[in-house]
Amino acid sequence: VRLADVDTPALVVDLDAVERNIDRMQAYCDALGVALRPHIKTHKLPVLAHKQVARGAVGITCQKLGEAEVMAAAGIRDILVSYPILGAAKAARFAALAGLVRMAAVGDSPAVPQALSAALAEAGTTAAFLVECDTGYGRTGVQTPEAAVELGALADTLPGLRFAGFMTYPTMPETGAWLERAVTAAAARGLDAAWVSAGGTPTARREAGEAAPVLTEWRAGTYIYGDRSTVADGSVPLEDCALHVRATVVSRPTAERAILDAGSKALTSDPAAGADGHGTLLEYPGARMPQLNEEHGYVDLSACDARPEVGELVTVLPNHACGATNLYDEVVAHRGGRVVAVWPVAARGMSR
Amino acid sequence: VRLADVDTPALVVDLDAVERNIDRMQAYCDALGVALRPHIKTHKLPVLAHKQVARGAVGITCQKLGEAEVMAAAGIRDILVSYPILGAAKAARFAALAGLVRMAAVGDSPAVPQALSAALAEAGTTAAFLVECDTGYGRTGVQTPEAAVELGALADTLPGLRFAGFMTYPTMPETGAWLERAVTAAAARGLDAAWVSAGGTPTARREAGEAAPVLTEWRAGTYIYGDRSTVADGSVPLEDCALHVRATVVSRPTAERAILDAGSKALTSDPAAGADGHGTLLEYPGARMPQLNEEHGYVDLSACDARPEVGELVTVLPNHACGATNLYDEVVAHRGGRVVAVWPVAARGMSR
Repeated sequence: VRLADVDTPALVVDLDAVERNIDRMQAYCDALGVALRPHIKTHKLPVLAHKQVARGAVGITCQKLGEAEVMAAAGIRDILVSYPILGAAKAARFAALAGLVRMAAVGDSPAVPQALSAALAEAGTTAAFLVECDTGYGRTGVQTPEAAVELGALADTLPGLRFAGFMTYPTMPETGAWLERAVTAAAARGLDAAWVSAGGTPTARREAGEAAPVLTEWRAGTYIYGDRSTVADGSVPLEDCALHVRATVVSRPTAERAILDAGSKALTSDPAAGADGHGTLLEYPGARMPQLNEEHGYVDLSACDARPEVGELVTVLPNHACGATNLYDEVVAHRGGRVVAVWPVAARGMSR
Repeated sequence: VRLADVDTPALVVDLDAVERNIDRMQAYCDALGVALRPHIKTHKLPVLAHKQVARGAVGITCQKLGEAEVMAAAGIRDILVSYPILGAAKAARFAALAGLVRMAAVGDSPAVPQALSAALAEAGTTAAFLVECDTGYGRTGVQTPEAAVELGALADTLPGLRFAGFMTYPTMPETGAWLERAVTAAAARGLDAAWVSAGGTPTARREAGEAAPVLTEWRAGTYIYGDRSTVADGSVPLEDCALHVRATVVSRPTAERAILDAGSKALTSDPAAGADGHGTLLEYPGARMPQLNEEHGYVDLSACDARPEVGELVTVLPNHACGATNLYDEVVAHRGGRVVAVWPVAARGMSR
């Protein structure tokens, strides 16, 4: 079976490109002397998580507990959930997982370690706790190194939890200095911040090197697939982009317009950093995708000499690999256009 | 079980509001003298499709064949697929469905009726064919009434297909006159365009009345749930909005910022027509949601006097009901906050 035989819209992944991308990031982290802990939110596939670990990753990162449950059930043994876990129900699930595999949690408020500790103590299990730090991005995270140490010290007193260090996302130019201050302040309190985790695919080459002296670990997700944002920022070039949406031209209402059966339900409405529109057509690089409806992808062909016919298949590079993956129940894996597997996207939609 | 006990993020639907919305649109179409054929892409739930039919709808509209297969399997008997079906594989599936329930197709190029006819003839089944018309929106559809009649005449000669009329989306001020010309030109060719279908929730009250003399049918989807776009255009007011995303405040890093566990994977990145940002918090109407990441919903509390704590639950009205629905494997149905059912979103992701 070849990709040309796969009905559309379909999410397809080029395994040769995946392997190049895994090896490139692993080699980069090895050279930097930091562990790589890939974020599986990009692929949501146990088979690729195992491939990342087999090629040198120290474990994996999950954003949500539901993803971690899928990955633990598939045999992954070392999981950081890089998202604050709130509430007794989720804390109990986390504690149950911690009885099966090595688990670590993060948080930026006392409520997180308090609920986790109660559940871990009840389950008789233990886990590592990293304080999430806002080192300049303005999302989650404690606001100062001093606040980070306060929360770490609290967590370290709680049954079942062990303060392990700090995590942040993404990695900004000021991240290294921020984390240095936190590690030093922790040591002054007698706390060993042995685990210092930063991340991001776009910032890996820009900021990781600078922050590397204080870092022990790098988390990245998108590097495995690439997308229009990584092409724009240079972190994964077009020829290494592994994830595409195959689509059919379902209408050619005018000379300059084509409509694809890939709209926001196939590509997401996520924007690409540094690129306009909603997708790049590999077969028609001059085409633009200015607009999406749920099942309609608008293609502006005015800059194209060759133009597709109704019924023709095209290959679209999406704006955002992680978002696109989350829309599909299965992904078609291929090598050079030959289909080698169809995998359920096992951690799709696991937002709880 | 009450909504307060449902873990987040969760998609929840208020059945009392659903019933008010169904009845209001049905009464409007009844008064106008047009049939209502609800678009199920908004809810993707057989149980609500049956409710719409039981309260007067003539059948349902599906955007994709996969949705139609789900609905036919659940006992819906009359289905229009309002999207061009291309290729032998999909045509065969359509023909198989046409052996089970009353099916109708649309298209704007000869390739569509030709492939459908071949499959219908082979299956020994029949279906109605509507020509899709671009009456001003600039998406799919033939460009002139004359072209519409040409394509209709071609379809009518093909085995298994019966030319039935015209369809368009959405409904513009010029739609009525456009379709009048097509119906008249069809009659002059001896073709009976007895089925003239237009649609859209926002345009129902603005344009349906004007176009009504030529219309026989109205298709609308979003009216059943409402969302931030329908609140902005007045088609479904805030108090009748039935679909919400329940979320937890997972971080309060600063006095003015809250982070919810509802990001683009819970709300989509779809914009709302006529409203800024990504959601309305019912409990904190002064809050804004200026940004989303996949699992992070950023909330700007600067205009709020009362502000939520970490761990607090909130109720978010999404920008786009159909897009949000497509992200969830299940939806929690409630009446007045009391959970009455948890339904699989059976037609989720059925884009093929």
